[in-house]
Amino acid sequence: VTGTEGRVAGRVAAMRPSMLRELVAAAGTRPLLTLAGGVPPPEAFPFDALADAAGQLLASGDAGVLQYAPTEGDPGLVDLLVADVERRVGITGAGGRVVVTAGSQQALDLVAKVLLDPGDVAVVECPTYVGALRAIAAYEPRIVGVPVDADGMDVDALSQMLDDGLRPKLCYVVANFSNPSGATLSAKRRCRLAALGAEHGFLVIEDDPYGQLRFRGEDVPAIAAEDGADVLYLGSFSKTVAPGLRVGYAVAPPWLVRPLVVAKQATDLTSSSFNQRLVAALLETPGWLDRHVTGLRRLYGERASALAVAMDTHLAGRLAPNRPDGGMFTWAAITDGPVDAVTLAAACMAHDVAIVPGTEFAVDGGFERDVRLSFSVLSPAELDEAMRRVAAAFDELLG
Amino acid sequence: VTGTEGRVAGRVAAMRPSMLRELVAAAGTRPLLTLAGGVPPPEAFPFDALADAAGQLLASGDAGVLQYAPTEGDPGLVDLLVADVERRVGITGAGGRVVVTAGSQQALDLVAKVLLDPGDVAVVECPTYVGALRAIAAYEPRIVGVPVDADGMDVDALSQMLDDGLRPKLCYVVANFSNPSGATLSAKRRCRLAALGAEHGFLVIEDDPYGQLRFRGEDVPAIAAEDGADVLYLGSFSKTVAPGLRVGYAVAPPWLVRPLVVAKQATDLTSSSFNQRLVAALLETPGWLDRHVTGLRRLYGERASALAVAMDTHLAGRLAPNRPDGGMFTWAAITDGPVDAVTLAAACMAHDVAIVPGTEFAVDGGFERDVRLSFSVLSPAELDEAMRRVAAAFDELLG
Repeated sequence: VTGTEGRVAGRVAAMRPSMLRELVAAAGTRPLLTLAGGVPPPEAFPFDALADAAGQLLASGDAGVLQYAPTEGDPGLVDLLVADVERRVGITGAGGRVVVTAGSQQALDLVAKVLLDPGDVAVVECPTYVGALRAIAAYEPRIVGVPVDADGMDVDALSQMLDDGLRPKLCYVVANFSNPSGATLSAKRRCRLAALGAEHGFLVIEDDPYGQLRFRGEDVPAIAAEDGADVLYLGSFSKTVAPGLRVGYAVAPPWLVRPLVVAKQATDLTSSSFNQRLVAALLETPGWLDRHVTGLRRLYGERASALAVAMDTHLAGRLAPNRPDGGMFTWAAITDGPVDAVTLAAACMAHDVAIVPGTEFAVDGGFERDVRLSFSVLSPAELDEAMRRVAAAFDELLG
Repeated sequence: VTGTEGRVAGRVAAMRPSMLRELVAAAGTRPLLTLAGGVPPPEAFPFDALADAAGQLLASGDAGVLQYAPTEGDPGLVDLLVADVERRVGITGAGGRVVVTAGSQQALDLVAKVLLDPGDVAVVECPTYVGALRAIAAYEPRIVGVPVDADGMDVDALSQMLDDGLRPKLCYVVANFSNPSGATLSAKRRCRLAALGAEHGFLVIEDDPYGQLRFRGEDVPAIAAEDGADVLYLGSFSKTVAPGLRVGYAVAPPWLVRPLVVAKQATDLTSSSFNQRLVAALLETPGWLDRHVTGLRRLYGERASALAVAMDTHLAGRLAPNRPDGGMFTWAAITDGPVDAVTLAAACMAHDVAIVPGTEFAVDGGFERDVRLSFSVLSPAELDEAMRRVAAAFDELLG
């Protein structure tokens, strides 16, 4: 197409095509020990429950199982989600505010599509989920990162930026066990963030794919449960059931529901009715999700501990990990030698271990001496072997 | 969010939220005789074949069935699609050019996202598929309609517009049994359109959801099969298997493949691996798709004939239908009295019959005296009853 190659290339670059998905894809065909992807392991997939549900749905002869669903979602699933987020997340009045999406990734695309004009300000944690950067960047905003510490986004720093004149349209956070930092936003900061959003007129996007995967400590109330908060809450079944179903959902403030539905209609008409019915069938099975999630918490808790032990055993003084209370990610600083994270990740790949350099999650550079380690995929024994290999990579790099 | 309501509302309006999906949704819960939606009827859904495939996939224990798929698509499905479009559509060198999408609707969103800047020109048939308008309009182009006659888009008229200085980025056509007109673009016009695209540097988007549903006449070679054509070919399993799986695909020119993949990654990461594997299982079953599609052709052919007979019986002199050779749609002009299509559709709804006024498919107004009738959902007896009711609606309107 005449004269468009350069602009298309620029737009593609803005969407930050990344080594990360290629690493994940490669993991399927190569005997990598991968700590790269934030994905569930095969043993977390409920094959049998899904087989039962699929058999029953397809034997029912109900055309709705295979027909276009309403754009906002299969009505049965939507009802279950309303009840779930009211009970579990503490969101009041969720009826009429749920939109089913193709994972929460699509919700990020849709909200950015309806809210952002080029040059608008979007605030994110720094480091942040690269998929969010990618979804948002497509609409050409100015993305501003706010530092993260052990209690999540530094909301005081954000407050100062607002006082200095920053006027964001939205603020994106993974409040529970963030990707990539593993940090959980403290209750006090959640309250403050909701208040800042209300005061300064920006939308808080609370992305919560990992919230049910807590293996230590107590749940922290959701930002979306704060009174008067203007929050878009995003949930997903990618981590609690299976990513391959592409079923997630948004609970939107009332003013945002119809824009999201119209944008979704323009984007893909509707999410898969079959997959929505599958998820609904699991949610309807008394106790099933609680039992399944309890098993996942045990699995990831064991693996997080095993990774901590393996890092302590093989990498003390070289990598300083944090200690997440749930989710899939440990964030670690490189504390030895003049080794940068990209070089370390490449050296690890030569040992068939995949880790992700912190630079992948940066907004404006930085994190050259940090790495993200996902403990979701490997067994404790494999995590030990992987850290042994990371130590070998360090040995090579430091001569 | 401060000051955004007005702009968001404008953007939503540009995406043309429509009565059409609401009609389709309503059809699920009300005893309507619906000729509104271009959707397969329940008896077209391969429940048993999908149940077998789902059972086998979920019993396999293969993690790829439920894991994130590569963004461009499940490798097994992609290989099958490459072979299919080379054999059936006549596209040469499709390897490396296929991107699986959430129906072809998502492909429209993605190509508009990477190609269009506000104010760019997008050419469409007039009347055209309203979902395409919606997908494209989100990126704020100038949409220019080219008239349609019995041989599809009037390519001579387009050529004249180009000579007069029109500089489109893309031209969208449904070449086979178009939605809404039912018209098929002639072989000569396809050849000419491909040449115009090459000469004037615009992308031809050939959306082909209905191409396999021919019940009369001979296939016409695809635009994408023309030598040297810069064509994005879109296929879908929504009409040949089931819309509720949300599996479609694009075959892109080489320069457009990576932009589409990166845009899809930003939008929803990947389409459902489970649903992609289901479709692949059906395609891999020797003869299954041919047998199934043969049955669909017979079904829709009978219904198209039944609608024609029913209209001749009940509505001669009032509605003048065209005679599609395939697909799901008949387009009809109102030839009696001072009745406009919106009024007629409303009067029909009062008789529990859903039809769509032509105005829904307009670019810049027009089609106030045309209606679209989909014959896909109703049985021959129901089509007769529906046309009897349309005649009753006419009687009321004309006193």
